[in-house]
Amino acid sequence: MRLIVGVDLGGTNIVVGTLPEDGSAVYGHQLQPTPVAEGPDAVVGRIVELIGKSLTATKRELGTDDLNLAGVGIGSPGPLNTQTGIVVMTPNLGWRNMPLRDRIADATGLAATLENDANCATLGEWWRGAAQGAQHVVGLTVGTGIGGGVVLDGKILHGASDVAGEIGHMTIDMTGRLCKCGNYGCLEAYASGPNIAARAVEELLAGAVTKLPDYVGGDLDRITAQVVYEAARDGDELALDVVRDTARVLGVGIATLVNILNPEIVVVAGGVTLAGDRLFAPLRAEVKRRAFRPAVDACRIVPGALPGTAGVYGAVASFKQQKWGAV
Amino acid sequence: MRLIVGVDLGGTNIVVGTLPEDGSAVYGHQLQPTPVAEGPDAVVGRIVELIGKSLTATKRELGTDDLNLAGVGIGSPGPLNTQTGIVVMTPNLGWRNMPLRDRIADATGLAATLENDANCATLGEWWRGAAQGAQHVVGLTVGTGIGGGVVLDGKILHGASDVAGEIGHMTIDMTGRLCKCGNYGCLEAYASGPNIAARAVEELLAGAVTKLPDYVGGDLDRITAQVVYEAARDGDELALDVVRDTARVLGVGIATLVNILNPEIVVVAGGVTLAGDRLFAPLRAEVKRRAFRPAVDACRIVPGALPGTAGVYGAVASFKQQKWGAV
Repeated sequence: MRLIVGVDLGGTNIVVGTLPEDGSAVYGHQLQPTPVAEGPDAVVGRIVELIGKSLTATKRELGTDDLNLAGVGIGSPGPLNTQTGIVVMTPNLGWRNMPLRDRIADATGLAATLENDANCATLGEWWRGAAQGAQHVVGLTVGTGIGGGVVLDGKILHGASDVAGEIGHMTIDMTGRLCKCGNYGCLEAYASGPNIAARAVEELLAGAVTKLPDYVGGDLDRITAQVVYEAARDGDELALDVVRDTARVLGVGIATLVNILNPEIVVVAGGVTLAGDRLFAPLRAEVKRRAFRPAVDACRIVPGALPGTAGVYGAVASFKQQKWGAV
Repeated sequence: MRLIVGVDLGGTNIVVGTLPEDGSAVYGHQLQPTPVAEGPDAVVGRIVELIGKSLTATKRELGTDDLNLAGVGIGSPGPLNTQTGIVVMTPNLGWRNMPLRDRIADATGLAATLENDANCATLGEWWRGAAQGAQHVVGLTVGTGIGGGVVLDGKILHGASDVAGEIGHMTIDMTGRLCKCGNYGCLEAYASGPNIAARAVEELLAGAVTKLPDYVGGDLDRITAQVVYEAARDGDELALDVVRDTARVLGVGIATLVNILNPEIVVVAGGVTLAGDRLFAPLRAEVKRRAFRPAVDACRIVPGALPGTAGVYGAVASFKQQKWGAV
């Protein structure tokens, strides 16, 4: 069976794995920080290095020196152009017009494809995760930002210029909070990781009773969304409040997606899902309250089933789609 | 060439026309009020009668008694089931589980198909109107409600349960106005015809200077959205304000659609487009302010090109798609 390397390039980490074309396993799993501050050459170098390490580890794991390697699928923050393989712009990496696909192809001698990272995560969940077999899939990844993807009949919805799926930037409150994108009231301006942490700190400073400071040795600057989820799991009231608020806001956005796209399944991924039913119960209730009944009844809202690797699975699936026409 | 009858059933009027399969003309155009108060049997009877009248007129217009008739495509308010041909529910007509497709087929002896009216309008604009040749199309019809449709690669996006495209019910202000659908802050709760009229009357009663009462003989109850558009065209300041506000609110909703679906074209239809550039200029500016640049650059926002008949064109196109697999 042919093997394909999947690369999930993020603003924080690079994840690489080598998959058989049927997606039945991940060999040679690699994870390292993205050397953002060292510039694009360093990032490309690190990706190439991790591809090499993944292949070496894969050989060891499979007990063979002879890999039948088809190529490498890359998922990257965008906007990007899947046809030319160029990353047009990434606020998180500070790149402009970076020919990432061909840089990786040249350095490795492998055929390569490029796809948006959030699209990859959704496609990965459709291929081998929580959304297998579904025709209409919406995926959200709640992290530093809120990424999204729409997969219809097993194909990523790209739109006219590869921008489709920017779910984090739907307006849920037209006179609301300023978003990093310049718009007011984006979903991301309420429910992204940093905004979740900021809201908890605001409440804390306003006098809410909470054990949050104990989780960070009293250093409020170290309160991240992860810390809030952890405290919520331990039953901290303030943290639970913030998780419930986040759930409601995500529910507002998902209700709109349910009314517009009528998906069978919405996959919510990212650290926020660590809060489990404390997130999903109020989120589903909010969607039910807001969206059309026949659309709500047809839709499951579930956590991602491939934490940490959905993007790698999706990068491989996208390679298959771009090179071979089908996953 | 085969002929197909198109029926556009609305809460106010029924429009019927007979089209050659290439959509090059509309023969036997009929328009009559929908006898909503007389119940479903009367509505079915009226539709059947108008189909007959359309065919008679078509024979006259074509100068032949021998029509090569393939069937009838019906567009109806929903939610409805395109597979079973049943209208599940229509608030405007007060129907529940009405087998409209088969009722029409039985009464006429013609093959029939059923599709959502707003989907038909968008498909019609794609087939023979403003969105010809576009791969990614979003349509909005601003009337009593705000209907919507998404057409991808010439196919209506139906979603998992035929609800996709409910663009009027996207949340643009999560703590905003109550919508008829039960949700808060829907686009429709701000920009539908009745809401446009209501906002004008509110401003007028609050003391705004306007000539609006002159258009309705002083009877404020007769101020409709149409009257507001007419006054705006004549330069009335209050009416212009309301049109600008409507444009901005529509812009908020369309910006979200542009970020999620990245369409090549957004077709805005309905009476509101009578305001012309007084609507479209601020609407486009709002979308530009809010949505991602590469998505905005790829997208044209235009008025519908088939006023009054987009739904008939779309019902015929939908018949072709359902019966013959392609438009």
